[in-house]
Amino acid sequence: MKNSAILLIQCPDRKGLNAAISDFIFRHEGNILNFEQHQTVEDNLYLARIEWDLQGFRLDLEDFPVTFAPIAQRFSIQWRVALSSYRPRVAIFVSRHDHCLVDLLYRQRTGELACEIVMIISNHPDAQRHADFYGIPYCVIPVTRENKPEAERRQLELLRKSEIDLIVLARYMQILSPDFIRNYPERIINIHHSFLPAFIGAKPHLQAYRRGVKLIGATAHYVTEVLDDGPIIEQGVERVSHKDALEDLVEKGRDLEKVVLSRAVRWHIENRILLYNNRTVIFD
Amino acid sequence: MKNSAILLIQCPDRKGLNAAISDFIFRHEGNILNFEQHQTVEDNLYLARIEWDLQGFRLDLEDFPVTFAPIAQRFSIQWRVALSSYRPRVAIFVSRHDHCLVDLLYRQRTGELACEIVMIISNHPDAQRHADFYGIPYCVIPVTRENKPEAERRQLELLRKSEIDLIVLARYMQILSPDFIRNYPERIINIHHSFLPAFIGAKPHLQAYRRGVKLIGATAHYVTEVLDDGPIIEQGVERVSHKDALEDLVEKGRDLEKVVLSRAVRWHIENRILLYNNRTVIFD
Amino acid sequence: MKNSAILLIQCPDRKGLNAAISDFIFRHEGNILNFEQHQTVEDNLYLARIEWDLQGFRLDLEDFPVTFAPIAQRFSIQWRVALSSYRPRVAIFVSRHDHCLVDLLYRQRTGELACEIVMIISNHPDAQRHADFYGIPYCVIPVTRENKPEAERRQLELLRKSEIDLIVLARYMQILSPDFIRNYPERIINIHHSFLPAFIGAKPHLQAYRRGVKLIGATAHYVTEVLDDGPIIEQGVERVSHKDALEDLVEKGRDLEKVVLSRAVRWHIENRILLYNNRTVIFD
Amino acid sequence: MKNSAILLIQCPDRKGLNAAISDFIFRHEGNILNFEQHQTVEDNLYLARIEWDLQGFRLDLEDFPVTFAPIAQRFSIQWRVALSSYRPRVAIFVSRHDHCLVDLLYRQRTGELACEIVMIISNHPDAQRHADFYGIPYCVIPVTRENKPEAERRQLELLRKSEIDLIVLARYMQILSPDFIRNYPERIINIHHSFLPAFIGAKPHLQAYRRGVKLIGATAHYVTEVLDDGPIIEQGVERVSHKDALEDLVEKGRDLEKVVLSRAVRWHIENRILLYNNRTVIFD
Repeated sequence: MKNSAILLIQCPDRKGLNAAISDFIFRHEGNILNFEQHQTVEDNLYLARIEWDLQGFRLDLEDFPVTFAPIAQRFSIQWRVALSSYRPRVAIFVSRHDHCLVDLLYRQRTGELACEIVMIISNHPDAQRHADFYGIPYCVIPVTRENKPEAERRQLELLRKSEIDLIVLARYMQILSPDFIRNYPERIINIHHSFLPAFIGAKPHLQAYRRGVKLIGATAHYVTEVLDDGPIIEQGVERVSHKDALEDLVEKGRDLEKVVLSRAVRWHIENRILLYNNRTVIFD
Repeated sequence: MKNSAILLIQCPDRKGLNAAISDFIFRHEGNILNFEQHQTVEDNLYLARIEWDLQGFRLDLEDFPVTFAPIAQRFSIQWRVALSSYRPRVAIFVSRHDHCLVDLLYRQRTGELACEIVMIISNHPDAQRHADFYGIPYCVIPVTRENKPEAERRQLELLRKSEIDLIVLARYMQILSPDFIRNYPERIINIHHSFLPAFIGAKPHLQAYRRGVKLIGATAHYVTEVLDDGPIIEQGVERVSHKDALEDLVEKGRDLEKVVLSRAVRWHIENRILLYNNRTVIFD
Repeated sequence: MKNSAILLIQCPDRKGLNAAISDFIFRHEGNILNFEQHQTVEDNLYLARIEWDLQGFRLDLEDFPVTFAPIAQRFSIQWRVALSSYRPRVAIFVSRHDHCLVDLLYRQRTGELACEIVMIISNHPDAQRHADFYGIPYCVIPVTRENKPEAERRQLELLRKSEIDLIVLARYMQILSPDFIRNYPERIINIHHSFLPAFIGAKPHLQAYRRGVKLIGATAHYVTEVLDDGPIIEQGVERVSHKDALEDLVEKGRDLEKVVLSRAVRWHIENRILLYNNRTVIFD
Repeated sequence: MKNSAILLIQCPDRKGLNAAISDFIFRHEGNILNFEQHQTVEDNLYLARIEWDLQGFRLDLEDFPVTFAPIAQRFSIQWRVALSSYRPRVAIFVSRHDHCLVDLLYRQRTGELACEIVMIISNHPDAQRHADFYGIPYCVIPVTRENKPEAERRQLELLRKSEIDLIVLARYMQILSPDFIRNYPERIINIHHSFLPAFIGAKPHLQAYRRGVKLIGATAHYVTEVLDDGPIIEQGVERVSHKDALEDLVEKGRDLEKVVLSRAVRWHIENRILLYNNRTVIFD
């Protein structure tokens, strides 16, 4: 397994940033494996992801904040450092459609997703047997209009106790309240089964069918308080034709949703995503 | 060149339709080259495209309506017959962006589009030299808010005199009035530079850029009186990333628009499109 | 569930074929749901798939051969008739890579694949637990250079006892002998992890990596006696870059292989495939 | 127009490379716009592209080699520096198929390709009028088996006189001799109308048609002395079906070839390509 550190950076662009950061890592004897940086034209922002080998690196990452502080202050850097060896703790929310859940579980097991799937939370008991197969706790918390605040309170308690880093809504059909969302800013990923911003809201496949589109889509995005409006992480499309009935759209959608959601989760886990202006930067 | 007839049919589904139609063609000694028919599940409609070789066909196509009438009446058929040898007369409307225009002209010349491009109408003189190169009349009709009715009157006059069958809006940046459109129902094809119904209206690339989408699109559709709402004929998408500035989206969009529009025009010309419920059936 | 019959036809093209076949179905009061026919330009072949509703059809399908014989003889038709309600009996062969197996099992359970998966045969015990989860018999038959004839004899015995209609090689890493293949002509589907005919044979991902391709592929095909040379059913590709190490190609390949193989299996099961000249016709 | 310098680097990976290079640019008061670097896993190579703003840069690029030499020697760096303001001088070779030629000419005119197209060399007179339209010298040099060495001599003379930087074979149907190629190492780009390494050599569309593939491809690559074996720059594919005759493959191929070739030319012109081990690195 790769034992590396990843530094994500955004700040106003200024001369000397690359030199200062590269030099900092070199001074502590880190070998940079990957340095990706670009400047945005319209906002004049400096955006970067730097990954270096920790073998031989002579700075304890716990001391990184203090040691890096002078540079960070000089350049007004917003930064985040992560270890590739750290496996984020993930909770998956699911309702009745279990294709994304099963796909994520399989990918985690094959090593494609370097995370711990700590729990599955559902408003239905249906997917229990998949959870059992992979040996993951499955918590059924029914949600109705009346009990929603209480249900969310219970969900949050579970998440906190398990120190969850990332929530994945794998076709979870309930809308989370703004209060809930504020607990996990930029840490809830949803899959919407349309090409956003087309077909926001309920029943996007039916909307797409009625509009007679020639391609259907899927969009993975961070959840914000405005429905289906958060920063887009990944999108995909698949061709459909007049021969496709609504249920064919649903079926074709499933393959899309699995691929699009799993990519988004992976990029989040691998610390490849930066956010600015309600948009994502994906370092690949 | 293929010398064939094409029959497009829609009607309520009933037993015996295929037999009646096949038999009709066989009785007049036509050899069917292609028979494509399907039944829509939700509306129980019969939709079909039949193409047969005219060599040896013993019915003059001018007599087709009368001879076919008994079958048409028995099954309440809406039909249209066309000759593959007939080259539809096309007018292209263009403004300043000339990439779709140039692409269509080139494809027509190589034989990919079996039509006559009879005239180019523009509100700007810019594309004149391309028209000259291909030897096609280029009519400049400036359009302002004030003169729009008069401009459309002149356009319609030109179109009628030249007996135009199809109008292609190849990035024509003026919105046609409902009055104009009613003269050419299901005979005006537009290219919109987004994945409809996302980013309807003006500056779709800017809208897409701001929303931070990961794919940009293009949509060819028939023009109806509601803006960007007509039946979709074809759509395409292309991947973009955070590195793409607005002008990169515009550039990537150009390739999409060319391919998507030229396919739509071709399918129309080859009589492959049926319309029902504001949707298209594309027989391929 | 749809209760329909499907007739697949190939023969030399002649006038009157559509009329004769449509009339035959109509005379027995069948309602045609879907009629797709085309004539090949270079071979002058008539190729067709006709699907009709069995509700009200007044001919027992067991009597179809005798009743249809006069038409078949008149036109020298090669034909095959199938019931959409019949669920083909499938055996899946797998080695260590279980992604295609797991994918097929899941799709069968959700109803996407209208077949019975009767058994899984493997030369390794690794995938047993997936078989158990879905309640499908899992037969381990180790294969070595020495015992191969004996192993194939045992495999064939199992297949015959279970009256298998279709064999799916879901990343089965053994090459089947010509003798074995002759028992199941046009009834063994393999997934090859390259874009055939590029990278035939062993380790296609390594070959692709070394050649520096920008897209990797997967190909589902019928197995014939010549390695990787059978009729291609479906192909797919995925973009790769210089950043992708060999193991990234393998990972990206998995998603491709699942989608490409499952489509091929589905088309076979739904009687959408005709073969001629070592090529497939896919009626969609 | 962007006034920047681009530095392309490859060398054995070692600690301190990023720091040394960034610091060098910073010391001369360059502002880095884009820094992309990665380490190859299997060869342990350091590969990088660095672009910086020349505004305020206090080193004349003519002095770059001498000033940068100490760093280059310390790290055994192979490097190349280029100016974004320099417009490479391009010669296009073409035979009868003119779609790629016309496409490149149009893109150059719209500003998409920041180069000078200095001349067009052809073994046929057919494309003369396109050259005239864009005002570019068109040189007809017929090639036969007998006169080939003489023809190449004349071609080379023209290229040298015009100080050509890049040769683009835009469906040029003659095979260049090794002697010719050695004059322009890594500076001849060819478009092959297949998905290499499938269908090497003559008539790839016919080969593809006969094999019954479901996708056709196109490949842009640098020309080396081994036919169709040079480093691949870009590839694309397009879906085909059993309904497509050979001429349909040719037509679909044209769209592919235009897009794939123009991307390759653009990346070369924008100094985005590094070569190692007969493979390309594309910095995007």
